[in-house]
Amino acid sequence: MATLPLAQSPEAGVCCSPLTREPMSIADAERLAGILKAVADPARLRLLSIIASHDGGEACVCDLTEPLDLSQPTVSHHLKVLVEAGLVTREKRGRWAYYAVVPAALDALGGVLTTRHANAGDCC
Amino acid sequence: MATLPLAQSPEAGVCCSPLTREPMSIADAERLAGILKAVADPARLRLLSIIASHDGGEACVCDLTEPLDLSQPTVSHHLKVLVEAGLVTREKRGRWAYYAVVPAALDALGGVLTTRHANAGDCC
Repeated sequence: MATLPLAQSPEAGVCCSPLTREPMSIADAERLAGILKAVADPARLRLLSIIASHDGGEACVCDLTEPLDLSQPTVSHHLKVLVEAGLVTREKRGRWAYYAVVPAALDALGGVLTTRHANAGDCC
Repeated sequence: MATLPLAQSPEAGVCCSPLTREPMSIADAERLAGILKAVADPARLRLLSIIASHDGGEACVCDLTEPLDLSQPTVSHHLKVLVEAGLVTREKRGRWAYYAVVPAALDALGGVLTTRHANAGDCC
């Protein structure tokens, strides 16, 4: 799973904004670009939003094909990209696979781009 | 200039998270994907971070070629993509062009991805 170039996770209550704090290293920029590429696609953004707004933040793959009007293999490909980026988890239960967003991963991604991290007490 | 699919700007003190709040429309997803594609590139991420961490959050194009080890036309192309996405402004002063990040645009982009928008009072 790809990891974000955060020195400290926002889960730890620490705000960090590598993008605007200091010049980003090549390695960090390549890692972050990889994760951003996973979300920089209309079908994957719609998948994320459909999964996240589903009951319990989880959706069966059987409920994801119709709203996107894409073939099942295409939807599966997009879901695989999101899983590999660490933005979505996949769990097989019975006949179907269930997908859930990883809020901490989205928050970390959003946090890297956001400039407003004045201090750890009043942000995020 | 591209605009983010935010019903209300975070500048207005309103938090919104279209990505996880409700299924995203095709038009919003295409708009957001376009802006994310602008940042989903290692060279452009490094450019953003170099400009943002420069004195006054602004950098001369003459200071941007060497740290990236890319040709001047390549750097200019990347800067044009960032300007067209509304993430960076360009101002010609004398011989050189000066680039500055647009914090509100980065904050809006980060805010769209972030899930933690419990209410307007304690977020962002």
